[in-house]
Amino acid sequence: MKDKKCVNIAVVGATGYVGYEIVRLLCRHPFVKLTALASQSFVGKRYSEVYPSLAGMVEMECCGIDSPDITEGADIIITCLPHGVSKDIIPKVVRNGKRVIDHSADFRYKSAAVYEKWYGVRHEMTDLIGLSVYGLPEIHRRQIRKAAIVANPGCYPTCSILGLKPLLSSGLIDEKSIIIDAVSGVSGAGRATELQFQFCECNENYKAYKVACHRHTSEIEQELGLIAGNDITVTFTPHLAPMKRGMLCTAYASLKKKINTAGLREVFINHYKDEYFVRIMSEGVSPETKHVAGSNFIDISPVADERTGRVIILSAIDNLGKGSAGQAVQDLNIMCGFPESTGLEAAGTYI
Amino acid sequence: MKDKKCVNIAVVGATGYVGYEIVRLLCRHPFVKLTALASQSFVGKRYSEVYPSLAGMVEMECCGIDSPDITEGADIIITCLPHGVSKDIIPKVVRNGKRVIDHSADFRYKSAAVYEKWYGVRHEMTDLIGLSVYGLPEIHRRQIRKAAIVANPGCYPTCSILGLKPLLSSGLIDEKSIIIDAVSGVSGAGRATELQFQFCECNENYKAYKVACHRHTSEIEQELGLIAGNDITVTFTPHLAPMKRGMLCTAYASLKKKINTAGLREVFINHYKDEYFVRIMSEGVSPETKHVAGSNFIDISPVADERTGRVIILSAIDNLGKGSAGQAVQDLNIMCGFPESTGLEAAGTYI
Amino acid sequence: MKDKKCVNIAVVGATGYVGYEIVRLLCRHPFVKLTALASQSFVGKRYSEVYPSLAGMVEMECCGIDSPDITEGADIIITCLPHGVSKDIIPKVVRNGKRVIDHSADFRYKSAAVYEKWYGVRHEMTDLIGLSVYGLPEIHRRQIRKAAIVANPGCYPTCSILGLKPLLSSGLIDEKSIIIDAVSGVSGAGRATELQFQFCECNENYKAYKVACHRHTSEIEQELGLIAGNDITVTFTPHLAPMKRGMLCTAYASLKKKINTAGLREVFINHYKDEYFVRIMSEGVSPETKHVAGSNFIDISPVADERTGRVIILSAIDNLGKGSAGQAVQDLNIMCGFPESTGLEAAGTYI
Amino acid sequence: MKDKKCVNIAVVGATGYVGYEIVRLLCRHPFVKLTALASQSFVGKRYSEVYPSLAGMVEMECCGIDSPDITEGADIIITCLPHGVSKDIIPKVVRNGKRVIDHSADFRYKSAAVYEKWYGVRHEMTDLIGLSVYGLPEIHRRQIRKAAIVANPGCYPTCSILGLKPLLSSGLIDEKSIIIDAVSGVSGAGRATELQFQFCECNENYKAYKVACHRHTSEIEQELGLIAGNDITVTFTPHLAPMKRGMLCTAYASLKKKINTAGLREVFINHYKDEYFVRIMSEGVSPETKHVAGSNFIDISPVADERTGRVIILSAIDNLGKGSAGQAVQDLNIMCGFPESTGLEAAGTYI
Repeated sequence: MKDKKCVNIAVVGATGYVGYEIVRLLCRHPFVKLTALASQSFVGKRYSEVYPSLAGMVEMECCGIDSPDITEGADIIITCLPHGVSKDIIPKVVRNGKRVIDHSADFRYKSAAVYEKWYGVRHEMTDLIGLSVYGLPEIHRRQIRKAAIVANPGCYPTCSILGLKPLLSSGLIDEKSIIIDAVSGVSGAGRATELQFQFCECNENYKAYKVACHRHTSEIEQELGLIAGNDITVTFTPHLAPMKRGMLCTAYASLKKKINTAGLREVFINHYKDEYFVRIMSEGVSPETKHVAGSNFIDISPVADERTGRVIILSAIDNLGKGSAGQAVQDLNIMCGFPESTGLEAAGTYI
Repeated sequence: MKDKKCVNIAVVGATGYVGYEIVRLLCRHPFVKLTALASQSFVGKRYSEVYPSLAGMVEMECCGIDSPDITEGADIIITCLPHGVSKDIIPKVVRNGKRVIDHSADFRYKSAAVYEKWYGVRHEMTDLIGLSVYGLPEIHRRQIRKAAIVANPGCYPTCSILGLKPLLSSGLIDEKSIIIDAVSGVSGAGRATELQFQFCECNENYKAYKVACHRHTSEIEQELGLIAGNDITVTFTPHLAPMKRGMLCTAYASLKKKINTAGLREVFINHYKDEYFVRIMSEGVSPETKHVAGSNFIDISPVADERTGRVIILSAIDNLGKGSAGQAVQDLNIMCGFPESTGLEAAGTYI
Repeated sequence: MKDKKCVNIAVVGATGYVGYEIVRLLCRHPFVKLTALASQSFVGKRYSEVYPSLAGMVEMECCGIDSPDITEGADIIITCLPHGVSKDIIPKVVRNGKRVIDHSADFRYKSAAVYEKWYGVRHEMTDLIGLSVYGLPEIHRRQIRKAAIVANPGCYPTCSILGLKPLLSSGLIDEKSIIIDAVSGVSGAGRATELQFQFCECNENYKAYKVACHRHTSEIEQELGLIAGNDITVTFTPHLAPMKRGMLCTAYASLKKKINTAGLREVFINHYKDEYFVRIMSEGVSPETKHVAGSNFIDISPVADERTGRVIILSAIDNLGKGSAGQAVQDLNIMCGFPESTGLEAAGTYI
Repeated sequence: MKDKKCVNIAVVGATGYVGYEIVRLLCRHPFVKLTALASQSFVGKRYSEVYPSLAGMVEMECCGIDSPDITEGADIIITCLPHGVSKDIIPKVVRNGKRVIDHSADFRYKSAAVYEKWYGVRHEMTDLIGLSVYGLPEIHRRQIRKAAIVANPGCYPTCSILGLKPLLSSGLIDEKSIIIDAVSGVSGAGRATELQFQFCECNENYKAYKVACHRHTSEIEQELGLIAGNDITVTFTPHLAPMKRGMLCTAYASLKKKINTAGLREVFINHYKDEYFVRIMSEGVSPETKHVAGSNFIDISPVADERTGRVIILSAIDNLGKGSAGQAVQDLNIMCGFPESTGLEAAGTYI
């Protein structure tokens, strides 16, 4: 089923949830061959032992994250490790002329200082920042094509930025008034074993976390600032909902001129008319995470709150789809010149 | 176990979720005797057939909502019917010198015009509005004591108003800047059978609904306006999370002066120092719905977002506890002069 | 992306959950063209209004279940209606030389009498029974190829029969000793709006239902009897778990000779060595529904309970995958001579 | 609110889920005073920091499990630690004339050899076995009254044994034919942080575990054997369902004589006529875990499967109620001569 001119891909951090979803998508991608799956916790185990859902499909053995197999066979390395951890891998890989799609925060920032402030660690690959592109195709598609390093955006930033972009681009909103209230499914926390993510701590529960201090705030501010051409500061509150997949952002801003919901929809439809993965909902229909779960779509609805002069923007993604793994595959397709939706044909599971 | 000087209570609309929770609380209340359970859908059925969880505890038969049993035996009638439906019951009851705790919107408004605008129907008991009190004990306790009709507040209003009250009372926030982003568990929709509330439509799903047009907006605005002494308009967005019980409000407002989280907590602790059911969380701890599920508590955390000059107020209740049935029992205790927490001793179930 | 030599397919009952899942799978099937989507409840609505997850992919309008569009354009009609309801469609279709994949119980029985006894209605298409085949490919693949009517098996029968088949075929178990204890996700009940399937009635709840009288018992008995060459009677207890998708059968039988788990696994591996969609788990690994959710696989583990001389067989499917829609597509592929896994490449979602 | 003649209770292992539920129940128990809460992981923390649901109710600081506070102030020590871990506490306590309710397996067995075989460790307190009683009140109430050590039964044994007892007592079933298929909510695994109990591993998933080798098998066999007056061997398969609380056992046995469901119900009703916490469901009504969640009830339904000559017994408990913490309080009430339902008045939460 695989095409002959396949690109060879190594996934590093392949046994976390983002890594898993990338493997699940790529094992059926017609132009991709998986050459190495590297893991911190499951070295030597068959991948299908770690994820029996892929039994009969992915039977490779996991190698260590320092294995030479990673770089040798691969054209592109996809790293799904926490920030800072890939510093022994990425420079070497790039030096060898290979390309990288990275899922940490390491290459998401134009400014190492901003990174260092929000992450509280030194940036140890500052020389590579110039080679990297923020991997949001709907903004940086042209640069992604040629980039040595594509920094896959965070899930909250992807969902928030795409919801606010048409309004900032068109100058419709007061840039100082942006508030983003967002919710994620539990898989956003990754596969690390933590008390707060145990089933009995999460089910039938809802809470906010990292209120007024979540790191993704800075990523959102960087990209919104670039769109607006001004520094932008936002209030951002993430929440945790009792579901595995799914993210919804509800963003608020003050409108600078009178416009109703129909008018807002027109702005959005026009803005995204060439973007396959962005769907503007019909008027009166709200995005729901089940519509995008398992897919790479982002569903968006702008609503005018005419009584208060505000706009409310709802945007929904699968945090493991457009919020990470799906977007990584979209970036990969762009980097390789494949049709952008290759391997991303699945619709939201709904049920 | 029951005390001799019991007050006799009839519950009308006893087989919906709010009615059920009231019955579950009252069947163990030491000073209450249930004299009638009226239902629209289950007339003639034993209550424990409708809710087998109460087998051996509540074995009365359900009567119709027009049964004479409702008024005859009872001192206080608790009505849990949709707006407008109790218009044949409440006037008669009040005329007979009995008191009412109502769960519809019918008596929540000082102004029939506001009610008629948001509910789209005529108010048919305008002559009784003067006899009614908005049943939020933390604001109107004194009037509740003597009221003929106590209008139990909506769940969103209860959760939002108590979160914002200390800030409006102390003049700390810009009254035009209030945004309330809220989420409810599915039981908030009641026991009506609707496609959108089927398990397969709700689980692993998250969505906003009635964006910029939810009726509770007007109730929130009325009470906040009374606190502030000014008309107040808010943006309010409700969401539905895949859980049965629980509500969290995340409210935003611009601060009029510099104050940090510790300072805000002091304002809140002081404001609510005499309120047993209001708990201000320790700094750094967020309210979670599991902490209040099954209880009558409201947990509140104010957080200063110093970068943007805003305050973020988190408040959590059980929508069936402080958000409806629990608060009804609290109101009942106040009306009857019982200790306010009688029958409301349960802690949040957590697990 | 669609191949030129597509087969034209009409789906009748397309807006229920099974219908939806078939549409979701077929809209990406390279050799299928959807020509009509017929619905009882949503006539005239665009399909993507009913299921916004398919926005941009399936924009056809739903026709009525008596629309001429169903038969005119289609080569094969897939009916997803309750038993008895297709009696006006199927005879006409078959008379016109078209083929049918039916999801009701109408054509699952060799004997109309058995059907009539368990379903309590007259069988009104007895003349067509001879043209029909029970659509379990792992048993009746050869007959499915040419069948005019393929009766897609029930979910419980699919999961139970495939778990027990190797043991009955090899004569290892006492045929009188079979007990099947099974659990289904809520989507097994379809999209009908019923109180017992509301989120608040299902979540955090577990129960048995139709104890000792579920209709699927008779279907299981028919097929097991055919394998064994004897009449077989089983005890079957279905349960409902708080999840959307997924089914697990735990079957018990007395072993006629001593054999350990390793020996049993060998029997199963050998029995199913040519079946792509049947996976025998590694020893010590239990099937889990998340491994098969969203896929067409059935995962099976036989375990010897040496202390009691019994075998325990665990088998897991997605009730909407191998349990209905996936199997329908598998049947379709067989009927049309396509590779059997076409359009069924997805792995279990796991997360 | 507390009575003057309170019994003083220390809870050891108070921060696990069983410990928490015991604390939650006892903090409202009118005849109990909590004197020490000992924890392995949270020494020095206020209890309400560990469980904010109890803020304002339980503000004691956690002591270590070797603290002298445990024994000094308490009349009865409730130990909620894994098997083997209490061996430094229990002998000392008993020597000092204090009584113990233990939640490990250490004192559930009459025979140390059976314990050692199933738990794979030496029993280090064999001299105390004679002082201990298996704490299932419906069987051993009389001995519990005076016992120095009450071994609170496992959740699966409680639920299974009470379901089968009337049938074994009356000689209605073939003792060799018993199969128990059971399911538990995730809290049954305790509060230990393990990958398999993370939300994303559990939600929308169902699986069997420890097939044919779960330790509770031996506990069930011991007690059923005592009832029958014969050695009994059963097949037992536990499953994990995506819910926090709740347990359902579906047990199967061959009937030795013809009897229908009504006849079986009579046997059960008669058998349990004096047991407040055992409820036999109306004919046609199945036990559901939501009916008992949060309560100390066990709901039971026997059903005759007349086609196969078997009986199917369904029994439901809250694994944290009658399955552990609730039963511990029931045992405590018996030990102290309090009315047996004191502090256990709560009905199942249903919603």
